[in-house]
Amino acid sequence: MIEDKNPQRTSIAQLGEFGLIDHLTKNFEINQPSTLKGIGDDAAVLDFKDKKVIVSTDLLIEGVHFDLAYMPLKHLGYKAVVVNVSDICAMNAKPTQITVSIAVSNRFPLEALDELFAGITHAAREYNVDVIGGDTTSSQKGLIISITAIGEADEEEIVYRNGAKQTDLLVVTGDIGAAYMGLQVLEREKQVFQVNPNSQPDLDAYTYLIERQLKPEARKDVRTLLHALEIKPTSMIDISDGLSSEIMHLCKQSKVGCNLYEDKLPIDPQFINVCEEFNIDSTTVAINGGEDYELLFTIAMEDFEKIKGNPNFTIIGHMTQESEGIHLVTRANTKIALKARGWDALTQ
Amino acid sequence: MIEDKNPQRTSIAQLGEFGLIDHLTKNFEINQPSTLKGIGDDAAVLDFKDKKVIVSTDLLIEGVHFDLAYMPLKHLGYKAVVVNVSDICAMNAKPTQITVSIAVSNRFPLEALDELFAGITHAAREYNVDVIGGDTTSSQKGLIISITAIGEADEEEIVYRNGAKQTDLLVVTGDIGAAYMGLQVLEREKQVFQVNPNSQPDLDAYTYLIERQLKPEARKDVRTLLHALEIKPTSMIDISDGLSSEIMHLCKQSKVGCNLYEDKLPIDPQFINVCEEFNIDSTTVAINGGEDYELLFTIAMEDFEKIKGNPNFTIIGHMTQESEGIHLVTRANTKIALKARGWDALTQ
Repeated sequence: MIEDKNPQRTSIAQLGEFGLIDHLTKNFEINQPSTLKGIGDDAAVLDFKDKKVIVSTDLLIEGVHFDLAYMPLKHLGYKAVVVNVSDICAMNAKPTQITVSIAVSNRFPLEALDELFAGITHAAREYNVDVIGGDTTSSQKGLIISITAIGEADEEEIVYRNGAKQTDLLVVTGDIGAAYMGLQVLEREKQVFQVNPNSQPDLDAYTYLIERQLKPEARKDVRTLLHALEIKPTSMIDISDGLSSEIMHLCKQSKVGCNLYEDKLPIDPQFINVCEEFNIDSTTVAINGGEDYELLFTIAMEDFEKIKGNPNFTIIGHMTQESEGIHLVTRANTKIALKARGWDALTQ
Repeated sequence: MIEDKNPQRTSIAQLGEFGLIDHLTKNFEINQPSTLKGIGDDAAVLDFKDKKVIVSTDLLIEGVHFDLAYMPLKHLGYKAVVVNVSDICAMNAKPTQITVSIAVSNRFPLEALDELFAGITHAAREYNVDVIGGDTTSSQKGLIISITAIGEADEEEIVYRNGAKQTDLLVVTGDIGAAYMGLQVLEREKQVFQVNPNSQPDLDAYTYLIERQLKPEARKDVRTLLHALEIKPTSMIDISDGLSSEIMHLCKQSKVGCNLYEDKLPIDPQFINVCEEFNIDSTTVAINGGEDYELLFTIAMEDFEKIKGNPNFTIIGHMTQESEGIHLVTRANTKIALKARGWDALTQ
């Protein structure tokens, strides 16, 4: 499905480990004042002065988290950075550095790694994070990417998952569900391609959904937006496993309940069309589909006026007493207990 | 070869991702004052005040970096931490936190992961590092471990690879080559076992070598030892890829040459015996065998008296002008140009 635009194949073994590292890391820039020493020693050296340091890490495995049949390597590199940067954003912190480790089987030529690292480099520039270290090795099967993201924040800025109060409003950025439907479209096209490799897919009706799957963005802007509105969320999490699952995390850690309103869910018109085409209930996907990388947070009720009508944010519910449980209030005004059916990497 | 002492097999899919994470991380303790928030949010939060932050990361792949035929999972967990902590020690910094990500295929029962995490927990206690985050997912094949180690140091304490001067002395901690020969012994026993699974190996003559391979230690003590001697190395690196390869790194980055003396190399009597048994030249193994996790550093000549005769350190050579090159001076007093033949994960 992905056309091989570059038929050249240079074996990575030719360069050796250190030659390969030099080659792959030569485009990385150091822009953060907190980076004293990046790649090139036993470890990187950072200086955060009086800021707190935020650290998160993710492991991405071919065949589990991504499928190279429809995921171009450049997009994969970009997305791998985004996924990790998103976790830093979810703490209301500013991403500053990442380390990038990869393991590849020998079926990957140097040109493929160049594509992957072009995506990583592009994301590092876009999010202004310095690539300060990593590891490059061989794998027995497929491609493995491990990224650790580092960020900084003043102590009073940091938002945890456990600060939601009973009367808080539940807010989400952007729209949800599109990344999951993008994946369904790509999976369907993969099946078509396997049956008929000459078919040319017409993906015009699905561009937004596919972009949300293949090139998601982390909401680095939300920290600035909220700061300008003089709002500090009481709790925050990013939506990687699905809205439902993330609401459960906030509720469990904050010891509160929640009412989520079906008619408030922010979904894109293209998403609705494609759910109808696939004959899937759009609400089910919107609350269970993962990989949106939007931010979900709670704010005090008195902040309502500050956020009302802001196109970046949608109020989708409110928190309640823990004993009231966690519910979806449907359009028909019935309450359904919410279940976490989020994406679970271990049962794939 | 490794006896299955625990025939119970609990499928990890039964617990689900979050259940598994809760189970595996329940024994992790937070002891470092710099850890404000460990596992349980989108990211960890650390506070290093006026210290600099040191970051290093490593990826360990089954079949490339370790062989579960002779590597017990508990030892593997321990070693995975040690390998990363060693990089922090090589900056003359104090290790403080680690993140641990793992990917496992479904052939691993929960009991196997418990063994792995018992080793990780043991090492975390031994080196006093807090496990502050990670990721747990499934792999298509085998076990993958990705660890990021974090440490702290005052700016003036940090030792880079590039500070060696022309007249500096070259010093190594402990002894070298043993881990490599331990691996040879284990590989031989694996072959024997494959031919005759009932054979009982007698490994008494190899205990030190095998321990160096299966349970190496990071030289966390060297920072304190050098501090007490009032010595600050001019450059430092840890020996993961082999002495020869690491000397090349120091020389290249410091723009100096080096004379390494064969008769000064610190090697263990058991190592010499086993090299003879395997009919391998002990000097070749001592300078090219990897995974010793000792520290290699340079000190100013005027520090000679402070370090002379100290059982923790061996002066094995001295730096020279860059134009003189990098040589091994043999017992027969001939100079041989040193080649980096270190362990290269990409050509395995």
